[in-house]
Amino acid sequence: MTNMQVGDPHALSKGSTPPPESASTLRLYSGRFCPYAARVRLVLNAKNIKCEVVNIDLKNKPEWYYEKNALGKVPLLEIKGPSGPSFISESLIIAEYLDDQYHDDFPLLPNDAPLERAQQKMLLEIIYSKITAQWHPLMVKEDTAKKAVLIKALGEVEQLLRGEYFAGEKPGFVDLCVWPWFERLPAVELFRGVPFTPTDYPKLTEWSEKMRVHPRIRDSIFSTELMLEFFQTRNPDVGLLSVILATFNFWTSQNPKPAAAANALELEMIILMPSNNTNSGASVGFTGVPMEIAAKDTAEKYANIHRVLGYQQRHPV
Amino acid sequence: MTNMQVGDPHALSKGSTPPPESASTLRLYSGRFCPYAARVRLVLNAKNIKCEVVNIDLKNKPEWYYEKNALGKVPLLEIKGPSGPSFISESLIIAEYLDDQYHDDFPLLPNDAPLERAQQKMLLEIIYSKITAQWHPLMVKEDTAKKAVLIKALGEVEQLLRGEYFAGEKPGFVDLCVWPWFERLPAVELFRGVPFTPTDYPKLTEWSEKMRVHPRIRDSIFSTELMLEFFQTRNPDVGLLSVILATFNFWTSQNPKPAAAANALELEMIILMPSNNTNSGASVGFTGVPMEIAAKDTAEKYANIHRVLGYQQRHPV
Repeated sequence: MTNMQVGDPHALSKGSTPPPESASTLRLYSGRFCPYAARVRLVLNAKNIKCEVVNIDLKNKPEWYYEKNALGKVPLLEIKGPSGPSFISESLIIAEYLDDQYHDDFPLLPNDAPLERAQQKMLLEIIYSKITAQWHPLMVKEDTAKKAVLIKALGEVEQLLRGEYFAGEKPGFVDLCVWPWFERLPAVELFRGVPFTPTDYPKLTEWSEKMRVHPRIRDSIFSTELMLEFFQTRNPDVGLLSVILATFNFWTSQNPKPAAAANALELEMIILMPSNNTNSGASVGFTGVPMEIAAKDTAEKYANIHRVLGYQQRHPV
Repeated sequence: MTNMQVGDPHALSKGSTPPPESASTLRLYSGRFCPYAARVRLVLNAKNIKCEVVNIDLKNKPEWYYEKNALGKVPLLEIKGPSGPSFISESLIIAEYLDDQYHDDFPLLPNDAPLERAQQKMLLEIIYSKITAQWHPLMVKEDTAKKAVLIKALGEVEQLLRGEYFAGEKPGFVDLCVWPWFERLPAVELFRGVPFTPTDYPKLTEWSEKMRVHPRIRDSIFSTELMLEFFQTRNPDVGLLSVILATFNFWTSQNPKPAAAANALELEMIILMPSNNTNSGASVGFTGVPMEIAAKDTAEKYANIHRVLGYQQRHPV
């Protein structure tokens, strides 16, 4: 109910019964890690709109969901009305509807300046098309060529950021609707070694930090730890080992080596083994550098990795 | 200038000089046969908006065009302003901008009903996604599986047409923005034998005829003959022979045979040979049915084909 419970893992699967009628005017059928659903949650939270959220298990969708949405896709907004519910699909159409219908609190697009409105939507399309084509394949498979294209694309998007935010002085439609892909970049960085550093992208990384702490936005954002866990579910044979190796290789390839990477060599590191194994202690040697690896509980695990890789210094969540 | 000259073949190619500054507030960089550019031309004409049109040779784009639009895509709208021109790309963003900016004459979307606005945009996405994925591959290559999917999709779209038009009692945003793909269906029918008949799609074919004669729409529509000529440029090795064969096979496969197909056997047929040949007289035998084929001039050619196939009775343009 009301603002979304970020990270609530409960999702309805095949064999479930449909949820009872919503107590709220709005209900969003969402997917926890779907970036398109995330767009809508960002808009709802930014505009302080009350909405019930029903998470759908996207790998194992409930039969009853297809009656609401023949394609079975999320996000889907259900709007209670006197003659029954109305439904809107397509994340950008939902987002624009919410801004039109609940315009006053935190307006996202100007509703009296057609040219500026069009230009913001165009900017969103440009950024979206540059970023998304690369990161999704990268999430599920290592691909050197796609990595190079993403790095180049980020450089181009850096040039498109001309104010505090893409929308100007405060976050707007563009910022919220492209955010879900930027939210995942630190996980892509850790997972595939695509650097997203202030040196390479001073404006984008600053914008990204401002988005993460903005009072209207921060509660919609998942932690990088949670994103990494999700990435692992899509790469069950890989495990966090590859994350650490990829990031370690990236850091040690920097010249001069960052201080944090030097520390890494002396720090205890925790490896989460592939999901078909239980967490267990193990030893692994980086080139010429034997390291001790011990099993710890999950909470400590990520904290250590971040400390090892100097990650936390750059992303102090 | 002003309303578009439909079918004007002049297009600017590599090596051309950029056109001089537009005398009009609006200039549209367009492609003659690009369905996305067609959306914008439909909206401009329906709303009676003055706009200069510059056709870009999409197979051989001018170097200067990339300075206006880095991706080189059409459509692109140039809007003259006091501090220089503004540009909008993406056909739907341009179309919505034009409706917002020039709302009073022939409004296409309600600007005071966010839910209805969203629902119309959603309907457009649904129809568009059902139709376009199939017809484009079909245009460039025969594909039995895609043909079956298109036929099924058309049946589903038939069910979505609940009023006179998709938008209700008069043409609106949905109608204009999906039209370019329906405009091409009779050519797809002739070219690939995908039937688009009143028997199969009573509502869609009636809607289609109403669109073709609507005073705000008819001037934006290309003739099926022109579409066929364009389809042939994408299939240079095929020529109209395959059009006739495919359509003939479709008609003669119907049981009972349509009256027009029976007539076909006695009618003179004109075959346009592949584009690397000159038009020439030739003989071809359909299974067991010898037919005389004679060269005629282009104008007469299509008229005959239509007559032969009973096409004109259903599409009396």
